[in-house]
Parts: sequence; C-alpha cells; structure tokens
Amino acid sequence: MAACEDVPEFNRSSVDGYAVNAADTYGCGEAIPAQLEYSGEVDMGSRYNGIIAKGKTVYVPTGGEIPAGADAVVMIEYADDPGDGYIYVNKPAAPGNNVVYKGDDIKAGNTAIKPGTRLRAQDIGVLAALGIDRLCVKKKIRVGIISTGNEIVDIDVKPAGSQVRDINSHSLSAGLLAYGAEPVMYGIVSDDYTEIRNVVDRALGECDAVLISGGSSVGLKDETLKVINSFGDPGVLVHGIAVKPGKPTIIGKARDKAIVGLPGHPASAFMIFHVFVCRLLDVLNNTNSKFQSSVKAAVAVNYPSNTGREEFLPVKLEYHDN
Amino acid sequence: MAACEDVPEFNRSSVDGYAVNAADTYGCGEAIPAQLEYSGEVDMGSRYNGIIAKGKTVYVPTGGEIPAGADAVVMIEYADDPGDGYIYVNKPAAPGNNVVYKGDDIKAGNTAIKPGTRLRAQDIGVLAALGIDRLCVKKKIRVGIISTGNEIVDIDVKPAGSQVRDINSHSLSAGLLAYGAEPVMYGIVSDDYTEIRNVVDRALGECDAVLISGGSSVGLKDETLKVINSFGDPGVLVHGIAVKPGKPTIIGKARDKAIVGLPGHPASAFMIFHVFVCRLLDVLNNTNSKFQSSVKAAVAVNYPSNTGREEFLPVKLEYHDN
Repeated sequence: MAACEDVPEFNRSSVDGYAVNAADTYGCGEAIPAQLEYSGEVDMGSRYNGIIAKGKTVYVPTGGEIPAGADAVVMIEYADDPGDGYIYVNKPAAPGNNVVYKGDDIKAGNTAIKPGTRLRAQDIGVLAALGIDRLCVKKKIRVGIISTGNEIVDIDVKPAGSQVRDINSHSLSAGLLAYGAEPVMYGIVSDDYTEIRNVVDRALGECDAVLISGGSSVGLKDETLKVINSFGDPGVLVHGIAVKPGKPTIIGKARDKAIVGLPGHPASAFMIFHVFVCRLLDVLNNTNSKFQSSVKAAVAVNYPSNTGREEFLPVKLEYHDN
Repeated sequence: MAACEDVPEFNRSSVDGYAVNAADTYGCGEAIPAQLEYSGEVDMGSRYNGIIAKGKTVYVPTGGEIPAGADAVVMIEYADDPGDGYIYVNKPAAPGNNVVYKGDDIKAGNTAIKPGTRLRAQDIGVLAALGIDRLCVKKKIRVGIISTGNEIVDIDVKPAGSQVRDINSHSLSAGLLAYGAEPVMYGIVSDDYTEIRNVVDRALGECDAVLISGGSSVGLKDETLKVINSFGDPGVLVHGIAVKPGKPTIIGKARDKAIVGLPGHPASAFMIFHVFVCRLLDVLNNTNSKFQSSVKAAVAVNYPSNTGREEFLPVKLEYHDN
C-alpha cells in the first residue's frame, strides 16, 4: 500500500528548543554565546506567522513546526533566556540539527505497508498516521477440523467404558484462532469410509484446508488414506514422517486444497499442528511466523534421543537472568 | 483448578499391538518366539469382555483400552500372525511397556490449570479432556487511553497547518488488544489542566490503569504532572527515565490505580508501551510475558550508543538458517 501523503507533513522539531539559522551559531560557546533576538514561540498545532530572519529565533516545543527561515533547533539546555529580549545560544548547531523533515517518517508514494503483512499494532499506527481508518484485508484462511474415531465423544458427554472426549477439535480450533486462521468444526465422525468421505467432501467445499485427526495410524480402521485418494490426483503426498511424535501424519491434496491427517493422540496432534500445519498456513498466507516463535534455551535435564526420528518435545520455558 | 477426573480414565495402549502378560514374553526372540493364543481384538471405544489369562493375547489399536489381565503391549512390528490362531512374539516386553496408565496424563485432584494461567490452545485441550466447556476467568485489565495536545486531530481529519493525527490512541489500543487487555479510548484532550483532569478522573473511575500520551515533555504546556498529583498521594512516582526513546516518561499512582504518561511521539510512546506498560500489565495480571517475546539476534550494522541512557531500538528480525 502506497502512502497517500508525507508523514510528517511539515518540518518538525524533535526537541524543546529554539529554531535558528544554524549559521548564526557558528563558533559560539559558553564563553561567547550567540545573541539572537527572541521573536516569540510556536504553538503546537499552529503555524508561526513570519520568517526567522538571520539573528532571530523562536521557541519551538517538541513536535512543533519549524518556521520558515530556520534550519536547525538548539535544545533548550544549550540556550539561556535572561529575559532581556535575547536568547543566548552556547552550543553551535549544524543545519538539520533536531529537525524531522517533511516525509522523513513516510514519503508520499512510498510503500507504507507491504502486501501480505500481518497487521501489528505498529502498522495500525502507520495507518493512523496516514488517516486510513479502514482497509481491505485478505480473508482469514478457513480450516476445517474433523475428528474421527468410534471411541470419541463430545466433551460434554461423560465417557463410558473406553470412550474418550474429543480433545483435538478444541485444541486445534484454539490453535487456529491463536495463529489467526478461522476454524470450522465438523464434529466427530465414526471410522466409516462413507461417513468420513461425506464430511471431507463438504469441508473441501467450504474451507481452504482440512485437518482430520485420528485415523492416521496403521491400525485396522484406517480410512483416511482411502478417503484422501478418492478425490483423484494427487491425493496422498506423504504418509509417515520421521518425527516423534506424529510419525503416522498424512499430507495430501484434494481439489487443490491441503488435507492433513493428524494423529489421534492430542499431544501428538497438537505438536504436528505446530510443526507442519502452521508452516502450511504460512505458505497459504505468504508469511513466515516461524522465527517469531523460536527461542534458544538450555535444556534442564539430559534427554536421550535415539529414535532415528527428529523429536519435538513440549517444554516449559523459564526465564533466568543469567 | 483441580482435575475432576483421571485422564485417561482407563489404561490405554500407546501403540498398535498385542496386549500380553509380560511374563509370557520373557526370553523370547526372533529364533524362539513366544506363542500366544489369539483371543480377538479390542474395538476402539469399547471394553473387551474378558481377562487376558497367561498364554493369551488380544490385538489393541493405539489408544484402545488394555484388557484386564494384560500388563504390557507388544508392538505389531514385533509379532507375527500367520493365521493359525496364534500370535508369535519375537521381542520380550516388560510390564508397563507401551501402556499409558489411568491418570498418567492428569490425576484426579491434581492441579490441571494453575490460577493466573493465560489459557493457550494446549490448555483448552486439557479443559476439553476434563469435559470442561466453560469456566470463570479473570476480567481483562481495562486500560484507558487519553491523547493530549492542541496539535492532535482525529485520524479521519485532514491535518491543517502543523496539526498531526492522533496516532497513539490507535497504536496503543492495538497494542493493548494484542497483549490481551481491554483498551478504552477517551479521545483527544487539549493541553488544558481542567480538561485533562476531568478525563483522567473519569478514566480512573472506569479503568484499572490509564495511559496519557503527550504532555510529558518539559515543554511549556505540561499539565500531566499537575493532574496526576492533584489526586493526592502518592501521585507522580517517576518523572524521567534514563532510556532512549522515552526519557520524559511519567509513572504515577492515583486512587490506587496506575497512570503512565507516555511521550507524544508515536514511536517513543509505542516503545515505552512495550518496555514499561506491558510489564505493568504483567504485574496486574500476575503473569510474565517477557520471556515469550525475547529473541537473541545479531545486529547487522554497527550502532554507536553513547547517550548514557539505555537504548531501545526497533529492529526488523530476519531468519537465516546459519
């Protein structure tokens, strides 16, 4: 997005001080201050009427407009005002000292916000500076969440026997919200090819990407692979990744949309969500959120890793000053 | 918050495999497999009817309940099923192998979520596991934002002369939202003691903390200090901090609420917001968000810092694999 105007729109002072012609201050010092005629002050938000001729000065507060004629500002700390109608400057200024020039922050016509930027608070500040109080943004990526498994029940149901609650729909949904995507929950589907296919079919029509949790293990009731392949080429692209947890992860493409089959175990599903699904969303968003979430830290215990797979461990970060 | 039940609520298998009495497998190997009578399989979500007596085994999928009698699970990779009604196990298992015991993830009565926790997606997962679909949370901290200065105009106004748009209300509001606080905008107030005091008075009544931007410089129209002190002790606690930018920052307390006077310059105000205001919100929230937002990085240019003040520079982070 190109800036429609300069920010600031006028030359401003970056300090409280006296606007001067820098040449008037050359060679001055504590012993031989430059004597300048005091010609009033600049009010914040208004324009000084008049030109600062040689030998004259006006007071300018921080952020105030530097009047015509002046080319530098001397900080109030380096000037004396004994009240005799003159200001005595005891430190020389060079042209441009303490001046923020028109367009210094943002030049009209220059790019103010790059396309693909995820707007942060400081970007909102840039938009406010340009007077932009609304703008078109990209739609959030819609991600369908399907939870499969005969053992899964809604979280408000008391599990009977060896049933378990549908954790993944909720943790993935919260993870998508935290990422900045829009989750669409499709609920729980039993391990049945036709049922799963019907829901995936609907999700592919309504979403930009689809997550299927459960059903990606080598177990007997694995229908996810068949479903993904049933929509034609390319279907399943990856089945099994050398990571721990999450080895049985499936990555596929159907109707030009991404489908990821996540492990049923909630901790594994959530880790794969972070390691792979968030990267996938980055690609779809044309952004990179990876660096923002990486921190170098020391591990407090020895952890042997000899699985032959890249391991991802949940850790608790503690901050120590040393 | 204490867990109301065990998670999982039953002993589960962490792999696809065969539930066994570990003692049956002692000493077995590729050459001399343990021969176990195949006694059916465990369906996901249902309970196996029967006890796994010595010499018997059943198939259990990942996450399935381990039947009574069995005390370990042998991965499917280490067992052969030639179809003769027996399973041949070629790797010994120890009791507990591949078993996730009842309550291993969360023990009933133990703390599931600590008070003061800012709920992340994984915490939502823990709540889902416990069947908790709603809970009482602390109210967001309400923070009033007051923008002072005769030169400030609303962002939808085209600035005339040396007026400038009210950037701070919007960047601070967005920063508070990103932090997780609730911003309350009080708009623009001119540099007038009575006007500022009236708005601060109202904000102190409606908010948990108040930010006043502008008016904290040593300039002529500085009324913020007087206003903060007008509410009685302790009033202004800090005026001026040895940091750059943001030297003229004011920190005070009135009616037992925090008031922070921020510099008028948007970049300075926003930096002070991050460095001081977010820490203040951490204290009010009894949390620490500092570590989460710190990243160690190398600076690409030499930057001389000889101001005698601690400097905070906005930087652009770039991720390089090396």
